[in-house]
Amino acid sequence: MKVKVVLPIISSIFNEEVNKEFEFYASADTEISVENLDFGPASIESQYDEALAVPNFLEKAIAAEKEGYDAVICNCFGDPGVRPAREIIDIPVIGPGEAAMLLATSLAHTYSIVTVLPNVVPMIKDLSKLTGLDEKLASVRYVCIPVLEVNDKERLLQGLFEQSLQAIKEDGAHSIILGCTGFLGMATDLQEKLLQNGYDVPVLDPAFAAIKMVETFVAMNLKQSRLTYMSPPSKERNLSMVIQKGD
Amino acid sequence: MKVKVVLPIISSIFNEEVNKEFEFYASADTEISVENLDFGPASIESQYDEALAVPNFLEKAIAAEKEGYDAVICNCFGDPGVRPAREIIDIPVIGPGEAAMLLATSLAHTYSIVTVLPNVVPMIKDLSKLTGLDEKLASVRYVCIPVLEVNDKERLLQGLFEQSLQAIKEDGAHSIILGCTGFLGMATDLQEKLLQNGYDVPVLDPAFAAIKMVETFVAMNLKQSRLTYMSPPSKERNLSMVIQKGD
Amino acid sequence: MKVKVVLPIISSIFNEEVNKEFEFYASADTEISVENLDFGPASIESQYDEALAVPNFLEKAIAAEKEGYDAVICNCFGDPGVRPAREIIDIPVIGPGEAAMLLATSLAHTYSIVTVLPNVVPMIKDLSKLTGLDEKLASVRYVCIPVLEVNDKERLLQGLFEQSLQAIKEDGAHSIILGCTGFLGMATDLQEKLLQNGYDVPVLDPAFAAIKMVETFVAMNLKQSRLTYMSPPSKERNLSMVIQKGD
Amino acid sequence: MKVKVVLPIISSIFNEEVNKEFEFYASADTEISVENLDFGPASIESQYDEALAVPNFLEKAIAAEKEGYDAVICNCFGDPGVRPAREIIDIPVIGPGEAAMLLATSLAHTYSIVTVLPNVVPMIKDLSKLTGLDEKLASVRYVCIPVLEVNDKERLLQGLFEQSLQAIKEDGAHSIILGCTGFLGMATDLQEKLLQNGYDVPVLDPAFAAIKMVETFVAMNLKQSRLTYMSPPSKERNLSMVIQKGD
Amino acid sequence: MKVKVVLPIISSIFNEEVNKEFEFYASADTEISVENLDFGPASIESQYDEALAVPNFLEKAIAAEKEGYDAVICNCFGDPGVRPAREIIDIPVIGPGEAAMLLATSLAHTYSIVTVLPNVVPMIKDLSKLTGLDEKLASVRYVCIPVLEVNDKERLLQGLFEQSLQAIKEDGAHSIILGCTGFLGMATDLQEKLLQNGYDVPVLDPAFAAIKMVETFVAMNLKQSRLTYMSPPSKERNLSMVIQKGD
Amino acid sequence: MKVKVVLPIISSIFNEEVNKEFEFYASADTEISVENLDFGPASIESQYDEALAVPNFLEKAIAAEKEGYDAVICNCFGDPGVRPAREIIDIPVIGPGEAAMLLATSLAHTYSIVTVLPNVVPMIKDLSKLTGLDEKLASVRYVCIPVLEVNDKERLLQGLFEQSLQAIKEDGAHSIILGCTGFLGMATDLQEKLLQNGYDVPVLDPAFAAIKMVETFVAMNLKQSRLTYMSPPSKERNLSMVIQKGD
Repeated sequence: MKVKVVLPIISSIFNEEVNKEFEFYASADTEISVENLDFGPASIESQYDEALAVPNFLEKAIAAEKEGYDAVICNCFGDPGVRPAREIIDIPVIGPGEAAMLLATSLAHTYSIVTVLPNVVPMIKDLSKLTGLDEKLASVRYVCIPVLEVNDKERLLQGLFEQSLQAIKEDGAHSIILGCTGFLGMATDLQEKLLQNGYDVPVLDPAFAAIKMVETFVAMNLKQSRLTYMSPPSKERNLSMVIQKGD
Repeated sequence: MKVKVVLPIISSIFNEEVNKEFEFYASADTEISVENLDFGPASIESQYDEALAVPNFLEKAIAAEKEGYDAVICNCFGDPGVRPAREIIDIPVIGPGEAAMLLATSLAHTYSIVTVLPNVVPMIKDLSKLTGLDEKLASVRYVCIPVLEVNDKERLLQGLFEQSLQAIKEDGAHSIILGCTGFLGMATDLQEKLLQNGYDVPVLDPAFAAIKMVETFVAMNLKQSRLTYMSPPSKERNLSMVIQKGD
Repeated sequence: MKVKVVLPIISSIFNEEVNKEFEFYASADTEISVENLDFGPASIESQYDEALAVPNFLEKAIAAEKEGYDAVICNCFGDPGVRPAREIIDIPVIGPGEAAMLLATSLAHTYSIVTVLPNVVPMIKDLSKLTGLDEKLASVRYVCIPVLEVNDKERLLQGLFEQSLQAIKEDGAHSIILGCTGFLGMATDLQEKLLQNGYDVPVLDPAFAAIKMVETFVAMNLKQSRLTYMSPPSKERNLSMVIQKGD
Repeated sequence: MKVKVVLPIISSIFNEEVNKEFEFYASADTEISVENLDFGPASIESQYDEALAVPNFLEKAIAAEKEGYDAVICNCFGDPGVRPAREIIDIPVIGPGEAAMLLATSLAHTYSIVTVLPNVVPMIKDLSKLTGLDEKLASVRYVCIPVLEVNDKERLLQGLFEQSLQAIKEDGAHSIILGCTGFLGMATDLQEKLLQNGYDVPVLDPAFAAIKMVETFVAMNLKQSRLTYMSPPSKERNLSMVIQKGD
Repeated sequence: MKVKVVLPIISSIFNEEVNKEFEFYASADTEISVENLDFGPASIESQYDEALAVPNFLEKAIAAEKEGYDAVICNCFGDPGVRPAREIIDIPVIGPGEAAMLLATSLAHTYSIVTVLPNVVPMIKDLSKLTGLDEKLASVRYVCIPVLEVNDKERLLQGLFEQSLQAIKEDGAHSIILGCTGFLGMATDLQEKLLQNGYDVPVLDPAFAAIKMVETFVAMNLKQSRLTYMSPPSKERNLSMVIQKGD
Repeated sequence: MKVKVVLPIISSIFNEEVNKEFEFYASADTEISVENLDFGPASIESQYDEALAVPNFLEKAIAAEKEGYDAVICNCFGDPGVRPAREIIDIPVIGPGEAAMLLATSLAHTYSIVTVLPNVVPMIKDLSKLTGLDEKLASVRYVCIPVLEVNDKERLLQGLFEQSLQAIKEDGAHSIILGCTGFLGMATDLQEKLLQNGYDVPVLDPAFAAIKMVETFVAMNLKQSRLTYMSPPSKERNLSMVIQKGD
């Protein structure tokens, strides 16, 4: 099985680490190929960033199908472009946010999501609502660390731990979902740290959830329903543009 | 008050008619400016089309604010790009779908939406769910006419009438929302035709709803909440691309 | 356009101020006529008060239609009598509570309502549930000032500000609705005060929302659905009574 | 135990029959007193009728408490005035609609309500929503017989049977609630007739449900919560009016 | 009327006290027979305990019907076995948890349940969800006293009072349900203590609720719907087992 | 990875076929062990059957953990005993019904479940509600074939096809879940048959879903949350009984 993992950002600096992570997560016979965008935002921290990332992600998804991949993952917790991509290709397209929420639902009455910044809280709530799991969502919390600064692992673990504790004690969370695919390798440590503090609750890594969901669907010979995700009618779709924005 | 109306499609052939329509709908002191996209799809009939339309719409929205407009309307029933646009500009951004659903909620226990094609039914249901009005939605029906062929007004009115009747009789609809901004000028005729057939129910034109909602918010000095639509952090957002797709 | 605004209380002392307020809110070509009840309660602070206010309000609504008015507003946040009035007259009948909740839904994920007294909290929650917007309601808070004492504007603004801050910080409110039509002219000041304290959120005045909703419906040639609000069958309806109650 | 049953209509012609019915339903040690309104509508078939019936019902409720009654029933399926009456007296106030819906919830996954006319369907749906049992409501159907013509028992039973069958077969109803307190003595016959046709489902008489709920609350020494139904503040409440309306 | 009350535990030490309690609650013409299990757990404090209690309870229910009882109560707040029992016998089967929740819904907008241990909180929430009353549930709290130690009435009352106060002040509870049928005779004292502290809210004893619900259904000649609780098909059901577990 | 699959019925005749099926579904390095009950029902077609199956299933689950298994599956669509088993062992416990519903939610807006008999429809609806996916459930349909007669594969496929078609056309299903683990090997054929008839929708086999979910959780080092499924307190749990029932 060949799985294309697209990082919906323009930088390639995470590719190698993400590739290693996914190979660690995947079954032995799953072949991973990680790729970043040619055009789009440097990171995704808003609906605006999502909107700018989607068109090139859709190109990558179309290319992946043509190149014989069995499934596509958009490796960002907000699942940007996953729904339109499901319309245009005939292999499963999976987002880490949806995958993690569905798995958590089997393990606990409720989950809280701990993410990077307050900016993405409303869009994560929208994703939970669209997935149909709104009543399971105890809260969305954030460590207040921008995506591109999450490499300070100690500070990150401490922030995740504090927010998870509050989610459990104050919001009624029974499980924790890491709300950013950039939180590489934190799930095990956080689960262990919570256990040592008396909370035996599952902590879900969204990228891990996504690759397992993909392997499940490919094994079961399942893809998205064409009644929910109909093939778009043929027409002209001219998209040439140049945007340059900075601060 | 100056309102920018963006048609999120690459053709300019509807601009004049849409401009006339909005000037008819708007108050005397509202100045309308209609514009189409430079890059994007020829029409919007899928989530894929929506995704391709949004980036250039966001550019148009930013430009509109800089040029002194008081509000922006994205003139497509699915409200593509409305949410990200609300993050990046400080004037109200309104979508016709959301506006029509909110107004219908004041007039009737339920509404049905009659749109163009089955392809857009799932995304309209998602929009209704995100707006928080899912329990009001009796059904989404379609006349099975592509967006670019809705100019045969007689055939269109007949299709809308038949679907509206079924929505009322079978789905429990108490009001009807036209589910495409291309259904110009049909609301009054459809409302009249339903009344003649014994159904005194409101029929809502989404473009009309949008311009009235805009005028309301500008008059009340209101815009989107910065707690739901936070300003995106500054970063590199490089978007240059060429897509050509046909059949 | 001629709009009848009925204050569902027996005192006439607010009429002039409310008239001035509505004329300020309304479009230039909207003519406002404010009227109070002949019979009913001195103020509305319970479901009991609402029940006593409705019969005479319904008479006023019938009279307004006969006198050629284009729409009727019942100027009390709980919207007493709005639903039965919609059954008996053929012009739009609008309540400020419902109007404000619907507009807020377009601007933010959630709203909190700040009203006068704890007594009216349950009935406001019922109104939110009937409107179908229960999931948007973050909380109902109160300043603990009786309706007839809200003229101390400084104390009122301070109370509204404190409750709004708590609604935002503790209840997750993303917008604020003033929960009493007696809070004349406070929305702008409260919105400004919240902005100065770092919260750029919309504050909605319910009377302002009501008149704009009325103008929208009249412009769009829309009124309540006769499938939700059927015309009552003809019959004897004898209502002559004397109640005198005091403390 | 003394229970006051108020018929919220101005005619006294049903009093004797209703009295007999309630005495048959009530426990041996429950004393029933039936009373009609002095002022109000001839029957209740709209929200307008409900609004006109409430003020005098509230007077009757206050009087009943003063006269030493242990509880009050408003004997109309729509429960007009029940909520405001709960605010102003310190004995339980029960409505037949709410009582029947709560009992049905213990017996079956879903219920359908079969009532008199289409006019009251929306208000029954609102009552179900306010009671918090919306997901249990399979449908509201009607026999299309005005309240004052339900004395043709054979025609009524046939209508109830046909609508109940459709509710079961088409709407997924697992139990049936009679949606009018004027359907005296039909529950047993309808339940039997459905059983003979292969449907062993409970049929609930709302008046019977109401008197049993009252006996339950009085026995348990329970009345409405003062956090949901707070005592109204003291104030002037002047209600003298004459309305005369006919066709 | 003869009612069988089954305590779904293997100890008989509570039988006499429970019998006295139920006779006090029941109407004069209701005959109560209390029985415990032959096989099962010593108390019910988990879903595991519930699962072990159900098979023998079902035997007791079948026997009760054969012996001419008119109804069966499973006297444990979690209502173990109530749903399968409804399938296999033709007399009403009632659980105290469901009965108390339904009655509370008539008295207040919300209820909180105060139970014994945190272990049973998730299963009580599931029961509330299955009953269809999830939106009424303000919270489930616990006094942290094991079922078999609730005989220290003073400590128990104090724990119930403290948790009820927090439920009212922090969780928005408008009524209180005792969440364990072992809390014999505490409802009146707790209601009085809350009233003395300014909270005039109903406190519901679940066993009292259950017997009144039973009397209501028997009087109304109602039992569970055979569309929700179909009779199981005939087949071999061999159940012989020995489990011994201790610590 | 070693997975124990328990068939919660007393017959062993399906063991071999189920074993073959699971080995076909499982990854190469997953070792399957199938076992039936010593005591319980011959098949599961009611809540009564479920209740009788659970105690011995719980014993099997405890034994599996002691014998070093990594996870337990209860191989019946209704997931009997899954929730109590999660309390008492420290390895994942998975039910096919829940697993299939969660996977379907990623593939389509809605699912319909096609099961054996009308008797199990209400309990499947309860399972869907408890899983939190009620809004995704389009309908539960049945082929009207008892569990022990599903070996006529042609008749079964035809029944599944007809019910699936109706679910799609009349109920709005966008995906199909096989509602019985006895429908061995039908998913692929049914999916193909639907595709040939123009419906490109996923068809989910619940046993396949269960083993993939198990493999996912074991790979991710996740098990049920101890906040939702707390360990039961120690106590006497004496369960020795003999039931014999036949027809």
